[in-house]
Amino acid sequence: MVCEGAPEVRIGKKPVMNYVLAVLTTLMEQNVSQVVIKARGRNITKAVDTVEIVRSRFAKNVTIKGIDIGSHDITVTDPQTNQQKTRRVSSIEICIAKA
Amino acid sequence: MVCEGAPEVRIGKKPVMNYVLAVLTTLMEQNVSQVVIKARGRNITKAVDTVEIVRSRFAKNVTIKGIDIGSHDITVTDPQTNQQKTRRVSSIEICIAKA
Repeated sequence: MVCEGAPEVRIGKKPVMNYVLAVLTTLMEQNVSQVVIKARGRNITKAVDTVEIVRSRFAKNVTIKGIDIGSHDITVTDPQTNQQKTRRVSSIEICIAKA
Repeated sequence: MVCEGAPEVRIGKKPVMNYVLAVLTTLMEQNVSQVVIKARGRNITKAVDTVEIVRSRFAKNVTIKGIDIGSHDITVTDPQTNQQKTRRVSSIEICIAKA
């Protein structure tokens, strides 16, 4: 786990700029110096995009403190057969910090 | 750049298992101790999947030496208007090593 205890921004289905705004807003809070961006599965690319947009356009002094990747099993139900299956999903955690 | 000089596996459009096989084959070569997996844009998730499948199913002793993310501008041509546009694309580099 990178940046234990830092506030989190979880990437979901919304457009990337929603998360860029969430990261910037969190970073601007008084006692916040680090933010960890978390994503699973297909949202992993959006997590990297979010950090890169923040770094290249809005907060050039932000640095990457650490990146962790992992994977775990999730149980999904097949809508047709109603059968439960276990599938492995990857995840990423990117910790960024104000300089 | 993580793991300068290590052999590379570039993630593209093929199924993830193609790249899992490529990584395992490269790691099994005599004088190879590290491999760097590189991907851009939507293939970033597949790069993380590739490393996680290698680590969790095939080579449990493989460790992650470093992860780098970045982004750069690419020029794309709009097929309708034939106009050239610059777009930012994110990238990831994951260096893994045999224990």
